[in-house]
Amino acid sequence: MLRFYTAGESHGRGVFTFLDGVPAGLKVDRSLIDADLIRRQGGYGRGERMSIEHDSADILSGLRHGYTLGSPILIAVWNKDFENWKEIMDPWAASHGRELYTPRPGHADLAGAIRFRHTDLRNVLERSSARDTAARVAAGGLLRSFLKALDIKAYSWVTNIGGIKFDGPLDRDLRDESSVFCPDPDTTIAMEEVIDKVKAGGDTIGGEFKVVLKGLPAGIGSYTQWDLRLDALLGAHILSIPGIKALQIGSGVECANLPGSMLHDEVLPTHPKSRASNNAGGMEGGVSNGEPIEVTCTMKPIPTLKKGLRSIDIRDGKAKRAIYERSDYCAVPAASVVGEAMAIIAVTKAILQSFFHPSMDALIDAFENHKRYWESL
Amino acid sequence: MLRFYTAGESHGRGVFTFLDGVPAGLKVDRSLIDADLIRRQGGYGRGERMSIEHDSADILSGLRHGYTLGSPILIAVWNKDFENWKEIMDPWAASHGRELYTPRPGHADLAGAIRFRHTDLRNVLERSSARDTAARVAAGGLLRSFLKALDIKAYSWVTNIGGIKFDGPLDRDLRDESSVFCPDPDTTIAMEEVIDKVKAGGDTIGGEFKVVLKGLPAGIGSYTQWDLRLDALLGAHILSIPGIKALQIGSGVECANLPGSMLHDEVLPTHPKSRASNNAGGMEGGVSNGEPIEVTCTMKPIPTLKKGLRSIDIRDGKAKRAIYERSDYCAVPAASVVGEAMAIIAVTKAILQSFFHPSMDALIDAFENHKRYWESL
Amino acid sequence: MLRFYTAGESHGRGVFTFLDGVPAGLKVDRSLIDADLIRRQGGYGRGERMSIEHDSADILSGLRHGYTLGSPILIAVWNKDFENWKEIMDPWAASHGRELYTPRPGHADLAGAIRFRHTDLRNVLERSSARDTAARVAAGGLLRSFLKALDIKAYSWVTNIGGIKFDGPLDRDLRDESSVFCPDPDTTIAMEEVIDKVKAGGDTIGGEFKVVLKGLPAGIGSYTQWDLRLDALLGAHILSIPGIKALQIGSGVECANLPGSMLHDEVLPTHPKSRASNNAGGMEGGVSNGEPIEVTCTMKPIPTLKKGLRSIDIRDGKAKRAIYERSDYCAVPAASVVGEAMAIIAVTKAILQSFFHPSMDALIDAFENHKRYWESL
Amino acid sequence: MLRFYTAGESHGRGVFTFLDGVPAGLKVDRSLIDADLIRRQGGYGRGERMSIEHDSADILSGLRHGYTLGSPILIAVWNKDFENWKEIMDPWAASHGRELYTPRPGHADLAGAIRFRHTDLRNVLERSSARDTAARVAAGGLLRSFLKALDIKAYSWVTNIGGIKFDGPLDRDLRDESSVFCPDPDTTIAMEEVIDKVKAGGDTIGGEFKVVLKGLPAGIGSYTQWDLRLDALLGAHILSIPGIKALQIGSGVECANLPGSMLHDEVLPTHPKSRASNNAGGMEGGVSNGEPIEVTCTMKPIPTLKKGLRSIDIRDGKAKRAIYERSDYCAVPAASVVGEAMAIIAVTKAILQSFFHPSMDALIDAFENHKRYWESL
Repeated sequence: MLRFYTAGESHGRGVFTFLDGVPAGLKVDRSLIDADLIRRQGGYGRGERMSIEHDSADILSGLRHGYTLGSPILIAVWNKDFENWKEIMDPWAASHGRELYTPRPGHADLAGAIRFRHTDLRNVLERSSARDTAARVAAGGLLRSFLKALDIKAYSWVTNIGGIKFDGPLDRDLRDESSVFCPDPDTTIAMEEVIDKVKAGGDTIGGEFKVVLKGLPAGIGSYTQWDLRLDALLGAHILSIPGIKALQIGSGVECANLPGSMLHDEVLPTHPKSRASNNAGGMEGGVSNGEPIEVTCTMKPIPTLKKGLRSIDIRDGKAKRAIYERSDYCAVPAASVVGEAMAIIAVTKAILQSFFHPSMDALIDAFENHKRYWESL
Repeated sequence: MLRFYTAGESHGRGVFTFLDGVPAGLKVDRSLIDADLIRRQGGYGRGERMSIEHDSADILSGLRHGYTLGSPILIAVWNKDFENWKEIMDPWAASHGRELYTPRPGHADLAGAIRFRHTDLRNVLERSSARDTAARVAAGGLLRSFLKALDIKAYSWVTNIGGIKFDGPLDRDLRDESSVFCPDPDTTIAMEEVIDKVKAGGDTIGGEFKVVLKGLPAGIGSYTQWDLRLDALLGAHILSIPGIKALQIGSGVECANLPGSMLHDEVLPTHPKSRASNNAGGMEGGVSNGEPIEVTCTMKPIPTLKKGLRSIDIRDGKAKRAIYERSDYCAVPAASVVGEAMAIIAVTKAILQSFFHPSMDALIDAFENHKRYWESL
Repeated sequence: MLRFYTAGESHGRGVFTFLDGVPAGLKVDRSLIDADLIRRQGGYGRGERMSIEHDSADILSGLRHGYTLGSPILIAVWNKDFENWKEIMDPWAASHGRELYTPRPGHADLAGAIRFRHTDLRNVLERSSARDTAARVAAGGLLRSFLKALDIKAYSWVTNIGGIKFDGPLDRDLRDESSVFCPDPDTTIAMEEVIDKVKAGGDTIGGEFKVVLKGLPAGIGSYTQWDLRLDALLGAHILSIPGIKALQIGSGVECANLPGSMLHDEVLPTHPKSRASNNAGGMEGGVSNGEPIEVTCTMKPIPTLKKGLRSIDIRDGKAKRAIYERSDYCAVPAASVVGEAMAIIAVTKAILQSFFHPSMDALIDAFENHKRYWESL
Repeated sequence: MLRFYTAGESHGRGVFTFLDGVPAGLKVDRSLIDADLIRRQGGYGRGERMSIEHDSADILSGLRHGYTLGSPILIAVWNKDFENWKEIMDPWAASHGRELYTPRPGHADLAGAIRFRHTDLRNVLERSSARDTAARVAAGGLLRSFLKALDIKAYSWVTNIGGIKFDGPLDRDLRDESSVFCPDPDTTIAMEEVIDKVKAGGDTIGGEFKVVLKGLPAGIGSYTQWDLRLDALLGAHILSIPGIKALQIGSGVECANLPGSMLHDEVLPTHPKSRASNNAGGMEGGVSNGEPIEVTCTMKPIPTLKKGLRSIDIRDGKAKRAIYERSDYCAVPAASVVGEAMAIIAVTKAILQSFFHPSMDALIDAFENHKRYWESL
């Protein structure tokens, strides 16, 4: 049972990842974590904060000499700008004033203040901030080493920004060269233009990205209880990313329009059994079927607009324009990295719910054993 | 903390609902449960099984004299056809043969057999069957009384079958008169025609439905941890429904195409605060914002086709056409009832994670108290 | 992850066991379940209810042809006397009156009524009744087959009733011949005399029992997180049994009085490593060490006394003698069976948290593999 | 739902506490946390490590200006000696050798190495070390402010060291003056003598302590499900403390020897209802009954002896004396502080499972409301 939680405020000491249940003896590739953290900070359309300094993962517990101990892993992504926020965010010293009172539509500001009876909106936005996704990416980056040990690979790429779409296949090199993480140079330029336009207008824009996992054998996830299904697990993890408003598995919304005979993925008599198509996105009945896991995610535009939206002042309930806190114009490229991380976490959980062993040696044995059984069918 | 699980095989003794954590003293309206169960059995496009007899909920524990006890609630939806399946499904007597060997693409059959090393596919399909959704609907029907006590109402309706779409508002009477649970007579006829056509061709068809909850105050769900977010909770519950391949919250996939200034729901200085639009589907930052909760779900076509799809025989791995087990042609209307039930369960969980009291009296006090705070802002 | 819950009221339809996460393909020995259920009903000092009829387990889901399906298992232990309680316990029909108002000290009656704001104490006592332990024993009886498949055996026996103690070793035949489940004929007679005496005086008496599990290899349970420790797991399961007020692991309270050099179990260079003693009761640092798991449990006397204790009437708060509901004089023998069941459940959980596989075949492979590693050291 | 976990290795960066689900707006008294941390470091019989420097709690997230935010709380208790261990504990740099191979009987060393297939015992003992209890005490110290806001107080004191017992009542001043946290000067001296004696002999000694919570109203915890019972919850938390081998609730093991008429706590017609005695230790049927919560805990002697016990070398399985890692002679006083912390955590969980509100204001209202109901009976 993998336990994954995060902690931390946006302008506090840092954001933190708690990961309990990773088997012992996993060799962790440090560079994978930091590469993901840096990738998350990139992407055309980010605001100024990203330029401050590169995030990196500081392991506070659970690793020794490059290997997991089986102990809980705690990762810090320190806030390198904390000195400038010390007074505002001090855990103990009394408040200095400078509260925020005009909630931004689209953010948790107002709903969160009502939930917790906060009178200073900063008490909400510091935690509801997308800064928390750095902690999620750190977890995903670490567990990438776990999946790698099992020969499973995860990818993501941007497929739509503001209506400019790309539906070709992934070319990893092209994606890495693209400022918007879209593996097509022409679409990249068109997407940049959309972003430039909204930026110029003090506006923001959303989009779509795809996450794919390759190498997962059939039999991960379970149909036996609603909350053990791989689709439910992936759904919860990905829809928990700030700004994600839609999730499609495989052919997604297109499944409504095609008859069963055209949609279902026929079984071919290969070893292991493969499919004539992958409209199911690699899952049937909540269980992986051996084809690539494929999900498409829709992200709404960032709700912090330079031209503040209509809102209220929570002190008197009267109309007022929303506050503006330094922010991005388009975060879809960054979100694609977060989506990849959350998919990695969800799939790791599903694997560990299927084949658990306290040590990687024994777990890999068990996993190989399962793959042999699968391939023998 | 509400615990909700189901049990039961499709042709076994029945399907069962376990619900732990419902406050004591809730007056349960029995007719709401059975009405939902019957509604789930209906809808144009069902196969023959539905005609056998009406499902009904048999309360095995947790209720007394019409009120919840605070004890775990166990509900049985007995299989009235069990006598005919006794031998095939006997928990103790030795097997009689009659195993199933050709998995149906689109179902859990093959992936499930690989997971559990089952050699008789019936051991998979009996549990992965959509029959389990009766147990979910029983839970939803019971918790409908809980939401009613808090003045919250849930609805669902069909918005698309095989590409025939309806995007008007809900008229409950028209929906109840429609054979496909679509609140428009003309669209209903067009949808019936689509179903007739696939049925004639030995094929099946999917579609879309909408689920809406009204009356939920702002402040339910939390942005503080990924798994406490209302969107993650709803996502897990709804994507766990067999056949659901996409979930959209509020404007869903359209969020990719519109700028922030047009999408975000501005706050109006009313009491309680309302919004100029509801593109967020009633959730911001994972917290309810007081607007109706709105989700759209896409269901794939039923994978059991009269014209069996290409598959294999799991004994020798050689090509063979898939088995045909009595099934439906279109289950979108039924799925809309299941979606409503799962949304009810998810929202009830979120409420009980926000305001928990062991007794309904105290819980209603607390809830009213919260609503007053919300309205006072 | 094994999920174990129970449901059911004492005089309702029955008591029920929900068990989710048992691997598929486990051959279940039906006779073990019923033998435990009957053993639980026995023991010198029971009241009249036990004579009504023998409990037996009715499998409602999760088993087919004698094997687990990997699906959730639901077991009913029906109340054969339900016809006589139908009106009093009806889930739907309005109440008939006949409420109970004078709580019994030692039972949950008063505290439970305050928690749930119940005004009829029957709403508490029906669920807090020890009748629920039949559902726990059914779970233990089923999981005994799981442990048997791994060559692990569980035993329990009574070591003290009202101060009459036995501290010799277990002789299973003698225990089975003893009316109080104590493997010594002379002590058995002395214990019977104690029970006769309290019975004659309208009083009740408690005692102690021991639970031992043999065959568990080293390495089950974990020191890495507080709630994964085997001692915490066993503690929660056993202290949840009604009436249990103390739990001792290994030498238990004696650990306070002896120096480390005399208490700790030295490691001997055998294969696998064994210990010179077992004062730790088979656990070190929350992890099994290969020696027998040994716990001693203390049960308080049954709180329902013929000579009612001083109490109040909850309608007016005035002094009144407690109600008397048909009950036992001594339930220590029965509790020893329940303790064994809860220990079996706890250890099964710990094993499945250590070596999980969806199928018994793969799980047994993994378990044997682990045992080989252990023995090789 | 309160989530409480710890992380951290004994000689690593520090130990860490993760606490999620504490309501927002709780004013935290910083001095209570540090006082507990310092108290945990004290007690006659500690080894040299304790003298290095005082522990203190560094809040990394979840607090602002002295109040909780409703966000997850992360606390660091930094290891001030880390510089000296940097190389040995580095998360990334390759190992330098200096592995440990001879497990200490009584510790997790051997069982843990078998579980995780560790070949360097340091990989076990760094996490299984009692150093982790500093993180638990930090959590208890923080939640003490929560209980204080509800007028609940927690105490602990030492009642036995190596057979020298004290069974009088608590006098907090005397306890605080006692080097062994025993509120009796004469017993304190006798206990010191026992410790001096074992220390002189290169040996160690255990003992007993009591934990009491006052002010908890009736109705906390539930009889409705085994894992919601207050006794199960307390049991799991306290038995998870390293070295605790027995737990007694109220009269504990004495419950075996007395008849029901002498043991059960009769209800008196006071407001709120009180009891003529408290043999039940404040819990009946798994629910608090308004009397003080009272538990007695037995701790075994520290397993690290200067005169190493018989053990083996895990490289060749041959006999060898156990390693000696700097340690204490008697840790019962420290353990009493840890027991108090774990009881505070368990009771806080039980309260939040009974009356949850996201903000302290609303929670206190609800709690007062419940107390009024209780007192009105």
